[in-house]
Amino acid sequence: MSNLPNDRLIATYRIAAPFDGARARAEALAAEQSVEMPLSAIRDVRVLRDIVARVDAVRPVGGGFEADIALAAATTGDEASQLVNMLFGNCSLQPEVQLVRVALPDGFARRFPGPRFGIAGIRSLVGAMRRALTCSALKPQGSTVQDLARLAHLLALAGIDVVKDDHGLADQAFSPFAERVPAVQQAIDAANCETGGRTVYAPTFSGRPRQLREQRRVAEQAGVRMALVAPMLIGLPSFVEFREDTALPLLAHPALGGAARIAPPVLLGTLFRLFGADATIFPNHGGRFSYSPQTCESLCAAARGPLDGLAPILPVPAGGMTVDRVDEMLAGYGMDTMLLIGGGLLAAGDALAERARAFVARVHAFGDHR
Amino acid sequence: MSNLPNDRLIATYRIAAPFDGARARAEALAAEQSVEMPLSAIRDVRVLRDIVARVDAVRPVGGGFEADIALAAATTGDEASQLVNMLFGNCSLQPEVQLVRVALPDGFARRFPGPRFGIAGIRSLVGAMRRALTCSALKPQGSTVQDLARLAHLLALAGIDVVKDDHGLADQAFSPFAERVPAVQQAIDAANCETGGRTVYAPTFSGRPRQLREQRRVAEQAGVRMALVAPMLIGLPSFVEFREDTALPLLAHPALGGAARIAPPVLLGTLFRLFGADATIFPNHGGRFSYSPQTCESLCAAARGPLDGLAPILPVPAGGMTVDRVDEMLAGYGMDTMLLIGGGLLAAGDALAERARAFVARVHAFGDHR
Repeated sequence: MSNLPNDRLIATYRIAAPFDGARARAEALAAEQSVEMPLSAIRDVRVLRDIVARVDAVRPVGGGFEADIALAAATTGDEASQLVNMLFGNCSLQPEVQLVRVALPDGFARRFPGPRFGIAGIRSLVGAMRRALTCSALKPQGSTVQDLARLAHLLALAGIDVVKDDHGLADQAFSPFAERVPAVQQAIDAANCETGGRTVYAPTFSGRPRQLREQRRVAEQAGVRMALVAPMLIGLPSFVEFREDTALPLLAHPALGGAARIAPPVLLGTLFRLFGADATIFPNHGGRFSYSPQTCESLCAAARGPLDGLAPILPVPAGGMTVDRVDEMLAGYGMDTMLLIGGGLLAAGDALAERARAFVARVHAFGDHR
Repeated sequence: MSNLPNDRLIATYRIAAPFDGARARAEALAAEQSVEMPLSAIRDVRVLRDIVARVDAVRPVGGGFEADIALAAATTGDEASQLVNMLFGNCSLQPEVQLVRVALPDGFARRFPGPRFGIAGIRSLVGAMRRALTCSALKPQGSTVQDLARLAHLLALAGIDVVKDDHGLADQAFSPFAERVPAVQQAIDAANCETGGRTVYAPTFSGRPRQLREQRRVAEQAGVRMALVAPMLIGLPSFVEFREDTALPLLAHPALGGAARIAPPVLLGTLFRLFGADATIFPNHGGRFSYSPQTCESLCAAARGPLDGLAPILPVPAGGMTVDRVDEMLAGYGMDTMLLIGGGLLAAGDALAERARAFVARVHAFGDHR
């Protein structure tokens, strides 16, 4: 107990409550998120000094207020679930509280695995050093393995960089992982042979830790070169272990991640990156979801900005995107981006191959103009 | 693909949008939560018939509406993360959507582990067959192992049934799991020898699957007889695997579970029970959290009501409770309940032992009156 590091994370919460009494509400939140008991009953002065969270500032914002709360880094145990517990464990149960920003002390990010590949690693993998990347999805779930493999082959022939499973393709009876993944990988390999291309397949890994291990074994044997994982579905610590145990780049899916009243740039940007994602899918503004352009921009900054020397990771805007929006998206997000169009290609029906080629051509052409 | 079972889960969503256009919005949600693509582009009739989610009803509720959506059980792959993905994966990213109820088809719950002990098993463990149970917590994090063991000894001497770690006690440097857990278990064993009591210690298990395995090994060796786990922190599939691999009863903690816009009775009641919890902690009304009495009551019904023959589990109201409220809580919740008072006992300072004894006496006396 003598050598407690004294560094602090600064978590900023937005609280829907009157600014009158903000200081007391913030003190209560600081106790809730650290010692979860009345401070008056704590006898150990080291706990009061080094462990209890500290209110650094409160300020009015909109109809409520924001509080900067300094959490002791030592309380996180340098572990994903406990970090999230400290940031948003109990106060997740208080609907008036949102976690809007997190600032980590120097060196803290290094205690987590971080991305193994990052943007540069994914660029090497698909052989695209400067232009933006393209991604599409195998759907719908319920399709036969043969139909999914056929679709993958077609998308790879069109030159899509990353063909991912729909995140709803798990390990169901209609297309079990162990049958689907080798078949789809083979279809993509065949297309790559025909075109000389380097399309990568990212199957969905999901389920219990044991299932994830078995899926890694199957995927490795099949020559898979990327993994799609939804960290909030499998659990953040399980995601960290996945990152530790695999040599594949990780494409993070946001499923179940939007509900948490944790600002998307914090969860899908900073935290997913910290825990090992190399690319992060998010619902782009103007699609089927309601993220604002500003949220999307902050999320990109969290994915690509400085973070203790961790590699920047690829933002992947998605969610109801169309080929028509390629130029606008790339003008806004820049080249270090992967555009994901799933349903927007499939909706072309018989003209799917043509539309996929148009998507690829549009993204490549945009690169040439720069 | 020929033998797809045709059973459906009915998920009820509350949607904050005008009732005009409710049907179309519900159809879009049904597509989002199943095939995530335009139905017009689906060629496989079996997918349209057996996989696409179906809107069974829409009705106006408050300023918005509710939609009953029938999800194909086959799409869940009988696995926790994929079940939650189907129920609330993508629509977690749509802030206007809440999951308010889930009805499972007959036999579905049996595909998940469910509680191993349930209420009856926990009653046997602590030797209390009819009265309500008592629970308190070891706090604050940052305390030395010796201080935590001393506190545990005192609470066990007072006759508390279950002494649990604060959910913030993970595996930090100030009280590492491998040192804390044997020391606290020993302190409780010693108190049990003195009193002839049967107090049980429930340490916090947290972290990556590998860490959970190691913690189980340490706990087993130390003679631990219950586990505290926050399913949303470690991840639901990891919780299921924990249930499969341990012989300990599981006390579920709601941390990170309140933020998900999934109604508490569904998440902390039905789903935690399905995945293996034997007892479920929830923030009682009138404490530091804002659950309504009605939410608490529905949560108890989900924990203890019929569910495909799965054992009923113990509701554990908590979150700012005091000894003064024992009678009211037991009158409301009945005997098949465990009351958790943490900070409310610790706030007594020097009078802690006395207040803990008063808590126990009050709960036992209430039982005698019935």
